[in-house]
Amino acid sequence: MRPTLVVDETIRSITPADQSWRAQAVQRIHTLTMPTWALGRLLDLAADLAAMTRSLAPPVERRAVVVMAGDHGVVAEGVSAYPSEVTAQMIHNFTRGGAGINVLAEQARARVVVVDVGVAGDLSDLARSGAVQSRRIAPGTRNIARGPAMTREEAGRALAIGLEVAATQSPDTDLYATGEMGIGNTTPSSAIVALLCGADPREVTGCGTGIGEPARARKAEIVARAIAVNHPNSADPIDVLAKVGGYEIGALAGLILGAAAARKPILIDGFISTAAALLAQGLCPAAADYMIASHQSVEPGHRVALARLGKRPLLDLGLRLGEGTGAALAMPLVEAAVRVLTRMATFEEAGVTGDKT
Amino acid sequence: MRPTLVVDETIRSITPADQSWRAQAVQRIHTLTMPTWALGRLLDLAADLAAMTRSLAPPVERRAVVVMAGDHGVVAEGVSAYPSEVTAQMIHNFTRGGAGINVLAEQARARVVVVDVGVAGDLSDLARSGAVQSRRIAPGTRNIARGPAMTREEAGRALAIGLEVAATQSPDTDLYATGEMGIGNTTPSSAIVALLCGADPREVTGCGTGIGEPARARKAEIVARAIAVNHPNSADPIDVLAKVGGYEIGALAGLILGAAAARKPILIDGFISTAAALLAQGLCPAAADYMIASHQSVEPGHRVALARLGKRPLLDLGLRLGEGTGAALAMPLVEAAVRVLTRMATFEEAGVTGDKT
Repeated sequence: MRPTLVVDETIRSITPADQSWRAQAVQRIHTLTMPTWALGRLLDLAADLAAMTRSLAPPVERRAVVVMAGDHGVVAEGVSAYPSEVTAQMIHNFTRGGAGINVLAEQARARVVVVDVGVAGDLSDLARSGAVQSRRIAPGTRNIARGPAMTREEAGRALAIGLEVAATQSPDTDLYATGEMGIGNTTPSSAIVALLCGADPREVTGCGTGIGEPARARKAEIVARAIAVNHPNSADPIDVLAKVGGYEIGALAGLILGAAAARKPILIDGFISTAAALLAQGLCPAAADYMIASHQSVEPGHRVALARLGKRPLLDLGLRLGEGTGAALAMPLVEAAVRVLTRMATFEEAGVTGDKT
Repeated sequence: MRPTLVVDETIRSITPADQSWRAQAVQRIHTLTMPTWALGRLLDLAADLAAMTRSLAPPVERRAVVVMAGDHGVVAEGVSAYPSEVTAQMIHNFTRGGAGINVLAEQARARVVVVDVGVAGDLSDLARSGAVQSRRIAPGTRNIARGPAMTREEAGRALAIGLEVAATQSPDTDLYATGEMGIGNTTPSSAIVALLCGADPREVTGCGTGIGEPARARKAEIVARAIAVNHPNSADPIDVLAKVGGYEIGALAGLILGAAAARKPILIDGFISTAAALLAQGLCPAAADYMIASHQSVEPGHRVALARLGKRPLLDLGLRLGEGTGAALAMPLVEAAVRVLTRMATFEEAGVTGDKT
């Protein structure tokens, strides 16, 4: 089947979250021994999870952080503080358990699934050992400042890879988190967010891994140039992905669609993941029902992107690491929401007098 | 020894967090495989923990949520949506594991320690079985709208109870959290915050467990009246506690001082806990070094109190339950900060190229 046919078929299978399950969850929450909605957004999350999973005991125990990795031709323009070889080096670090995402996923009892969608460096050793899933489209995208990142066919393949990873992981996964690794990937993400949110590139381009202000201004010019050179159709998410995106960003959009199709919650990490979530939302608005915004990063475009997605993030800790770290940090809050819904006593069970009003 | 002597002695033993340990933690963090300070406030927290505990591997595994409970004579003025008997009912709920704090503390691998400092209802069965520590000063405070909540001697005893609980728990506790139960206790907390922050009672009085707007305005008038009737000396925290406080609030202030004396981190829960933290800070400014603000509640006075404390909360989830629930929800973030500090690989160990700049 052609990649875009798989994508189309998945999109058709996605249904919105079920509001009747939300209503049942809300009803139960009102019987629990606390003042009305006294756990605030944790209870909103509990109701969201019930609606996503069609359950008053939403399963969230089996957890996977899927780290999609790819490189970016636009790094040649000097947009990052790090060279492209760091992508492959960090993937080796992931497979040895030394990175931020390993440490935080272990705490959250989540496995880390690393997928090479288009890393420039050599990962054949890790592919052979099975430490990394090798689904390489190409050794990095082309330079978006000069032409399209990839062909439309490659964009469809990136999406299809994400769908396939979701399909493979789903039998063992209740709760997904998005992660990514790709030196330079805040640049295509800024371009995607600018296009899908109708924002000025200067407003949605940040310091990424930590470039200073003059470098940030140059990076914003590169983003503007990528849009001017490629003139993507902002009403066509696949065109946006092909012209100014990245392989790992497309694969993340596919993963999100796959999770939504399986009616499983997916924690969206930071700026790059949210750019992917916007592509998924553009392809299928109902998919947004299955997304949980995990945190507000320091990238200025992240706030714009989350607003477009209609999501309020759970955490705001000044993170800008990516890898899925913010999503892993939010996993205990998802578990807490489920525990409150399923384990707290009701006023009746506990013999507690209710609100006088 | 007289209660105030115990308090004075503890205060003298509290030393500020050690900045040389902070500096060592910061140095280590800069070697870890991530862009500079890319986990933001999680890294600030890691450095804080190193400075508190004088360790690059701050122990945080053995966790206790200490729930101080007491009733409030001011409930007679109609300040709460619930009657005072709910305090004792909820304590029964705590001992059966059905309350929000039970569910969230279990997830955080924290034990819940419940102390009756002055509950109006009968808890003798729970005291006999050992489910609740009975340290009753009186069956609830007197009505602060008409006179002082307690004597100065009782205020000293409340503080001393907190110190003793900390001393008893410390051999088995690395990380504390404050919790409380006491119908009506946002009213004395608003009075304490108004006095210690120099704020207008109308600005720092909220809806508590969920009274509506006209009731909130009346509650603010009660807070103003309590201050006018008792004219506490805002430069004397014990006078403030005695005149407009509560037994559980005093015991929490003592617990916080006890944790600081033991150089152990203590997560401050919501509005009432933060009022207690302000008393502790007033008695010993260095004690604030050991406090971690867990969340921003919806009580309007909480923001004012946290600003005075000089703390930025980790979470902002619209909570207003108390019991220690927000502090329990923040425990995984404390654990995450320690894991990052102790378990991530360095650039050298991982063979990753550093920042080009």
